[in-house]
Parts: sequence; C-alpha cells; structure tokens
Amino acid sequence: MVGGGQLARMMAPAAVALGVELRVLAEGPEVSAVAAVRTAPTGDYTDLETLQRFAADVDVLTFDHEHVPTEHLRALEAQGVAVRPGPSALVHAQDKLVMRRAVAELGLPNPQWQEVFSPQELVAFGERVGWPVILKTPRGGYDGKGVLRVDGPQDAGTGTAAGWFERATGQDDGAGLLAEEAVAFSRELSAMVARRPSGQTVAWPVVESIQVAGVCDEVIAPAPGLDPQVARAAQDAAVRLAEELGVTGVMAVELFETPGTDAGFAVNELAMRPHNSGHWSMDGSVTGQFEQHLRAVLDWPLGATDVVAGAAVMKNYLGGDNQDLFAAYPQALSAEPRAKIHNYGKSVRPGRKIGHVNVVGGAHEIQRLRQIATHAASILRDGEDRGVQPTDVTDAPEQQPWGAVPSGQDEPPRVGLVMGSDSDWATMRAAAEALEELGVPYEADVVSAHRMPTEMLEYGRTAHERGLRVIIAGAGGAAHLPGMLASVTPLPVIGVPVALKTLDGMDSLLSIVQMPAGVPVATVSINGARNAGLLAARVLGSAPDASGQDLRERLRDFAQELSEAAHRKGSALRDAVGRGTASQD
Amino acid sequence: MVGGGQLARMMAPAAVALGVELRVLAEGPEVSAVAAVRTAPTGDYTDLETLQRFAADVDVLTFDHEHVPTEHLRALEAQGVAVRPGPSALVHAQDKLVMRRAVAELGLPNPQWQEVFSPQELVAFGERVGWPVILKTPRGGYDGKGVLRVDGPQDAGTGTAAGWFERATGQDDGAGLLAEEAVAFSRELSAMVARRPSGQTVAWPVVESIQVAGVCDEVIAPAPGLDPQVARAAQDAAVRLAEELGVTGVMAVELFETPGTDAGFAVNELAMRPHNSGHWSMDGSVTGQFEQHLRAVLDWPLGATDVVAGAAVMKNYLGGDNQDLFAAYPQALSAEPRAKIHNYGKSVRPGRKIGHVNVVGGAHEIQRLRQIATHAASILRDGEDRGVQPTDVTDAPEQQPWGAVPSGQDEPPRVGLVMGSDSDWATMRAAAEALEELGVPYEADVVSAHRMPTEMLEYGRTAHERGLRVIIAGAGGAAHLPGMLASVTPLPVIGVPVALKTLDGMDSLLSIVQMPAGVPVATVSINGARNAGLLAARVLGSAPDASGQDLRERLRDFAQELSEAAHRKGSALRDAVGRGTASQD
Repeated sequence: MVGGGQLARMMAPAAVALGVELRVLAEGPEVSAVAAVRTAPTGDYTDLETLQRFAADVDVLTFDHEHVPTEHLRALEAQGVAVRPGPSALVHAQDKLVMRRAVAELGLPNPQWQEVFSPQELVAFGERVGWPVILKTPRGGYDGKGVLRVDGPQDAGTGTAAGWFERATGQDDGAGLLAEEAVAFSRELSAMVARRPSGQTVAWPVVESIQVAGVCDEVIAPAPGLDPQVARAAQDAAVRLAEELGVTGVMAVELFETPGTDAGFAVNELAMRPHNSGHWSMDGSVTGQFEQHLRAVLDWPLGATDVVAGAAVMKNYLGGDNQDLFAAYPQALSAEPRAKIHNYGKSVRPGRKIGHVNVVGGAHEIQRLRQIATHAASILRDGEDRGVQPTDVTDAPEQQPWGAVPSGQDEPPRVGLVMGSDSDWATMRAAAEALEELGVPYEADVVSAHRMPTEMLEYGRTAHERGLRVIIAGAGGAAHLPGMLASVTPLPVIGVPVALKTLDGMDSLLSIVQMPAGVPVATVSINGARNAGLLAARVLGSAPDASGQDLRERLRDFAQELSEAAHRKGSALRDAVGRGTASQD
Repeated sequence: MVGGGQLARMMAPAAVALGVELRVLAEGPEVSAVAAVRTAPTGDYTDLETLQRFAADVDVLTFDHEHVPTEHLRALEAQGVAVRPGPSALVHAQDKLVMRRAVAELGLPNPQWQEVFSPQELVAFGERVGWPVILKTPRGGYDGKGVLRVDGPQDAGTGTAAGWFERATGQDDGAGLLAEEAVAFSRELSAMVARRPSGQTVAWPVVESIQVAGVCDEVIAPAPGLDPQVARAAQDAAVRLAEELGVTGVMAVELFETPGTDAGFAVNELAMRPHNSGHWSMDGSVTGQFEQHLRAVLDWPLGATDVVAGAAVMKNYLGGDNQDLFAAYPQALSAEPRAKIHNYGKSVRPGRKIGHVNVVGGAHEIQRLRQIATHAASILRDGEDRGVQPTDVTDAPEQQPWGAVPSGQDEPPRVGLVMGSDSDWATMRAAAEALEELGVPYEADVVSAHRMPTEMLEYGRTAHERGLRVIIAGAGGAAHLPGMLASVTPLPVIGVPVALKTLDGMDSLLSIVQMPAGVPVATVSINGARNAGLLAARVLGSAPDASGQDLRERLRDFAQELSEAAHRKGSALRDAVGRGTASQD
C-alpha cells in the first residue's frame, strides 16, 4: 500500500485476519500506519525509483490516497506490477473533469457542469445555470479543499478564483477548471462498491453522509428513509461506474440526493479506495471495506455486504481541546459501552481527523446510535463529558409528525396506538398501560378514518418508515380504522373493537375481524385493549434480536405473575369456601 | 504480551483500533503473532531475566498462555510490574487442584474430585464415585493433553497413569494428581467474563462448545435452548470466580451442562486469557474478547457484551490435506460470502489449529450459520469443496420433534401452523399457501387441545425455544387451541375461527376472540386462514433485521399486486357496464 495514513492503518487488522502480509510505503516514520504493520519503509511516493523499489517484491500494489502521479503508475504497470486500481481507472478519482466526462458518457445523473478557462466563461456558465456556482480545481482537492462557491459575476475573476485561473492557464496540460451548478440537494449520500479484476462487483447499502464545513462528520447506514428505488438506482450507478471504468478495489461514489429530479440523485465525486463514508462497515457490515479492498485487489471472491444488525452509525472525531486521547478513554468508554473506538494514532491538531467511533444496532434505534456515537466522540474531542447538545446531533430528521409519546420515554416509539375518537381513550388506555408495564415505547394519537381520511392513510403509509413496528387501532361502530390502516401498511395491525352504546360491540367486532383475504387485522376481544398491548409486545418479542429476547423474558415473568395471581385467587376462594363465606363475594 | 501464539496475533487488530502499542515476547521469529505486530523480540519466557528485560518499558504485562512460571510472575510483581492477571489469580488456571479447591470453597458446582497420590487412592476414589474416572495432571495440560480416562481398577496403576504417579511423587511440591468423576453431561458450555483491576466485571452470553477428540471444534453463541436460569447461574458463577480470585483480563469458565442436578451445570476448567470458546465474539459481539482483554488489563471501562445480530458460530479449521490455505481461499470465499476467515499464519500440520471461521446472523438461523462455518472451514482444510456431510455438522440438536415442513424448505421454520383436527387443513392450507408465496418457512401439524392436551401445552411451551416466532392456530366450534397455546407461549398467536356445519363459525369466532385480559389472541375473520398467513408474515416483517426488511418489501409488492388486481377488476367491470353485460356476470 502506497501511503501510510489511517486508511493503510485500518487495512492492517483485515490483513492480519486473512493472513495477508501488508507492507506500507510511508511518508515518514511517524505516520498513522507505521505502528500497525511489520514492514513500513519510508519513501517519497512521487519518486518513480522509490515506487519501483517498493513494488519489486509485492504481489499487488494499492493505495492509501489518489496522489501518486498517473505517469508513474503507467510506468509500473508497463513493468508488470499489478497496480490496483490501475491508472486508467484511478484517473477518474484524480481528475474531476475526467470524472464528469465519464459520468456524462455513461448517461448517469451529473449536475450541470462545464470546463472553464477564464472568468468570462465562468460568468457565462453562471448566467446560464444560475448563481451561485461551484468552482473546482480538477486535481488535488479533498475534504472541501479545491472547492469554491462563487456567488455572482463579481467574484468570478477575483481572489481565490483568479489565482486558480492563473495557475490553470499556466499549466501545459491545457486543462481548465471545473464549474458546476450548486445542486439543490436534500442531503448527501454515498454508494460504495467493490470490484475485483476478474469482474465480480458488490455494493453496500447506500448510506447518508453528513458533512460539516466540507468535512465528513457522520455517516448513517443505511440512509434512513431513502426511497428504495433511488437506493437501487444509486447502487446500480456505482456498480456500472466500477465496471465501465475498470475499477479494482473499493470505490465510493459520493452523491447528492435531489428529490424532484428524474433520478432522485446526482453524482458528486468518486474515491477509489476505502473511504470515510465506508468506515461504518468495519463494525457494521458482514464484510468491512478494508477486508473487501484486500479481497478485491487480490482478486479473491468478495464478501457479503449486509448490515449485520440492521443499522450502524459512524462519527468522526476531529482534533479539539483534548491533546491526550487516552486520558479521555475512561470517560468515553464508560459513558458509552457500545461505542467502538478507532484511533488513528495521530498527533492532535485542531480539525484533523484523528479517529472515529462506530456504533452498531437495530434499524429502529438509529437516533440512539447517533447519540451514542456523538457522545463518545465529543468526550474524546473535549477531554471531558460536556453532555450531548441537541446541536451536536447534526441535521436531525424532522420532528416526529405523529403522535404523543409518554414523558420520560427516551426510546423512539415502536408501537403506534391510534383510535378513531378521543372518547375511545377510556378503553384504549389499557393498551398504553400494558405497553408501559413491559417497557415498550409507543406513541398515541387520534386518527379518524372518516373525519380525516387523508391523514389516516398517510399515517399508515409512513408508519414503518418512522420506525414503528406494530400498529394498534381501536374503533367502535362501523369501525373502519384498523382495516384501512392494514390496507396501506406492511406492518401488523392489531384491531380493538370498542363497544358503543348499542349492539354490545358486536358491530365493532365484525367490522374489524371480517376483513377480506389479503388484508389481515389481528383482532382482539371487544374492549380488549389490554390484550392488544400485550399482543404488540409479543410481536416485538418475537424479533430475533437482543431487545426481542429481553421482551420475551419480561413476557414470561408477566405470565408467571398472572399464574401466581390466579393461584392466589384460587387459594382465597378455597379459604372463603372453607369459611363458608364464598357466596358472599 | 508474553507468548506469540494466535491469541497474541488476534490481539493485534484490537490494539490497532484502540491505538495501543502491543509488543510480543515471541518464542521464535516464525510464531503466529510476529507478522502482526511492529515489535516482537524473541526470548525464552521461562527465563526471568528475559522477562525482566521485556517488561522494563511496558505499562502492563499480560499473556498468550498460562505457562510462565508463577515464581517469575511473583518476582516481576514484586519489582512493580503490572502483571495481569496476577500470579495469585493465574495459579487457578495453571493448577487444576488449586482451581478445584477454590471452586469448592466458593460453593460453586464442582464434579466430585480428590487429590490422589497413588493408584490405591485412585482405586478407592473410583469405587466411591463409580467407574470410569478422569485422571488429570494438575499442571501443563491443554486441548485434551494431561487428561486420562481410567475405566476401572485394572488401569489405575499401569501405563500412562503409572507414569504420572511416578512423576508426581518425584516432584518436591508434594502435589498429587487430580481424580474427577466422569460427569454425565449433555454438552459443554463456556461462560466468559472480563474483569478490570478496579473491579468492573462483565459477562458474555453462555455459549455451547463442541469438542472433538478433546479439542474445541465449534462454538455456538448463545448456547441454543439453554435454560435461562442455568445461563444466569453460570454467568453469576463465572463473575463470582473472577471477583473472588481477583482475575484481571478475560477468563473462560468451561462448564458441563448437567441436566437433573441442582445447579444444572458443573465447572470443568478455567482459562485466564482470551479463549477458543470466545473467538466468536471477534465478529459476533459488540465487544470482542481481544479488545475486552486489552481494556481489562489496561483498567479501562469494559465494553458491551451483547450478541450483535442475535447469534454467531465459530468453527476451527485444523491442519488437514491442504498445505496452502491461500490456494483454497477463492473456493471457500466464493462458496460462503458470509464466512469470516481468521488465519493464524501458521504452517500446516495435521490436527493443528491454524485458523477459524466466524459466521454471524440471526438467532433463527443457527443451523444455517453452522453449515456456512463448517463448509468454509472444510474447504480450507481439504483444499477442495467436498460438500458438507451431515456428519460434519457435529452433535446436531435433536430432530425437530414437531411438525412437517414443506419439502425443499431449507430454512428452519419460523411459523408454527397448527390446527385442532386434520379436517381443518382444507381451510388452513390457505395460510400455508400465503406463507409459501412470501417465502416464509413454516411447519404444520395437528395439535388438538382436547384430544392431546399435554402435547398441546408442550408445543406451546417449546415453540420459541425451537426458533418459531409466530404460531397460527386454527380451530372450530368450542375452539380452545389458539387461546390455550397463547397461555403458555410468549410468542404472538394468530387464531383462525374455522366454521363448522352449524352457527356459521360464530361459535369459533367468539371462542377465539373473547380471551380474558392477559392472554391475547390475534383473531382473523371466520375461515380467514389466508389472512392469518399474511399477518404472520407481517409480524416477521416487522423485525428490525435484514430478513424483516426483505419481507416488508415482499409484502409491499404483494399489496401492489392486490391493488393492481382490484384496478383490473374495476376496469373489467367498467368495460362490462359499458357493453351492457355487467348484470350477466
């Protein structure tokens, strides 16, 4: 591996597990990877002879960064060195103009862009696509460097932009600068793939990547609430890029999510190496990106890309007040026992990426995972626990649009408890009480099928996306709410027939239970709201994860108590019968 | 770390992640750990001066094995070296007699045992506890070495036993041999804990460990079907041992499961270091045993011990026909993309532990995880894919006692479909068909509440232990089956009222739906078996794992088809009305 940064360092554990010998060409004796590998000679990666010496007795040459000159890579390849990714693929990650052309040729969604050679051309571009525009140096940028927002014609030929134009026109490669429209995106995504030389390509789930001041801050896998069609199209685009460009190894395709456009996304940048947006996979995927990169460049079959436990969150920790990470370990590890620390072994400088925290858990607890990761990372950064500020969890999803949650409930609701009318609460509160007894988080709301049909359908359609896993719906009379919700949600719906003044609830029961084939409702007894709560708990308790097992155990304890209570009542009755007082009860 | 075996090697990745510098005192330049760490001087761990030189500039000294002489550790400790675990704890893992006395003093479940100094004493012990008995050398045994089964008085003073007695009485420590009863155990378990010097102790779930010829072959985490009370008692025993013995670092307590005894288990052996029975945790637990050992010996707060995805299986690969592991990688990795290979970088010798395979997945797919691990490990061992023989998956749990599964269904059933009478099948098959359409594995059986009440309760009680996650029960008339099952299982029970000849099914409906508070049954419409199948799929689809998401997507497709069919019918009706033929349909 050429380059001794944290990517090379994090490759080392994967190499140990697979039994592969990893050698690193380090920039100096103190860089991140040196402490992690047996063999790490120091050398200058811009010097061809150094590269040749290093490559002389390795099987495969790969990279920690994209800065090795293309002509050196071509020379090495010509000498028979297995350079992976090869220079003709790598140039697409090295040169943003080359990348834009390739994306356009493949018909994949680009923002509007143009190569510009002068401030005048930039102004013409801005007048065409609208201001502001983004100006980029085609080569050498990373983490927001080499990217400039130009607000209007007045800024096109002054300051940084002027300097860039001057340097670009002074070069003899004849390349200009890259001008791009400022894409109206809702968030940034990343589609990561791996490809081996003999052709196999695999894709991880598309993730959300949250940037702060142009630097990756947090990654959520999979991207919450992403339209499955957009997710699939983004994966397909990344696979296609890997195949058409002949990528070997791991590639991250950074994307903008652009709701309202045809594709729903546009390509931002490419990175042909393990990438910050893939660090979550080290703990969160069956195959982490570092192991996968090794397998890919060695042309070994690629590993499964499933998310191990449903979700994962990665939070970077940048250099801050704290100079001694180890001194902050006790507090960080004790506050968050689920946090996985990845320390890059670098000296602390403000804003420098010096490590990250991964947290793995269920898809229903993404906000919790974000809090854990943010909390642990902030303790490491600050050297003390200043608590998690609401602003620390950046870019939080919108406020829960539905339902009240009980005060003090700090987990996101997993059961949606809805009823046709607030007068049903007298009956339905028994469901809420059962859920509270068993520690199951829920939300409660009135959603009338007849008085607010549109909202009712919206509630049903979005329930699973908002993390709900069961719906309990109570209604009386012509009780349509449970069945209507069941017709628009993939979740199990439990129906509670609420008895009204006439018919003893038989109207409600038959309206709820006699659903047509294809749309089931789990119906409980008339006014049986308590059982609806318990049934919802059994559904959650049937899940194969740790929280499911917890709940099953609580349900078992609960059944035990029920049995003991029945035994006590039996004993009391026997006593009463013995005393001749039973008939008085 | 003193010792350069695979345990030291596997510590290296954990050290890299935490940013800890790991140095290894290696037995030679070729041992397993040397390739994995930056600093690995060669030296003799039985030589005090070598140990002193090595310990001079480390913060903490810990071990890859238990063979460092106790007196050396005491000397180092006296000089102020942080020896973890310390010699007074470690001696319990070094000397089985010391261990038996400690377990007895703490009142934890020991097998019957005695220190014996002569064949005569051994015979007396055997006559007392019954033959065969197990004879052990107190020190130096591992992987079945130092353990001898003595079948009767005739073998007590001959062969290996005679040699051991001769050597023991020749030593000047005055110690004899350890005689133990041959415990009647159903299987072997392992309870693993970690403790830090300042006192915190954590326990992983108890695992099943399958031995072949005295060597660990496979580990299943958590131990399938283990009585939760026994599991908790075993964890408590391990925690207590760690605390009372003052253990620092990771400790494995190997156990026998002994059904029918008071405790349900007995202590077999202790290991005070990462252990083969904990390798699953590298991929399967939030905190792997190697990271935890580092945290523990450095007195850092310990990490969460949850099973990340519900279950994990570890399979060792021992040296076999194949001399070149890498040559077998393409086949192994391609056959099993979920397999995590851990290669110890050792030369291949028959029967030598040269690596292991971990597979992580849901608790419902343990048999599948075992097959994956066994398949990948056997390809590495054989150098070719000879297929997984049924005998390769050793010690398989007993045959499924309940229910027929559809032919070709290769996943274990997750839905139990039962009915009161085989005549109900005409109605209930619609549930089976819905499950098959959605690819949900199930089993089907007749379990009559009235004609086989005991078996019916047993079915309900064991359903969740056998991996079922939902029960569908159909019955007619005085339909007691769904409610009775619901009273003994923590799983959700879906009730299908089957209509008999009279009352149009209203008797069945009310018998099933009108359950008392505390015991819910999810009731569907009369004869609504198809909806019962769909509802079961929704319950499974609400789980937060990948298989849940898969199923939700299939359910969404299904709803889409249902909607399209309804649109088609509407369109056909409109056409018919337009042609004036609607009334003829």
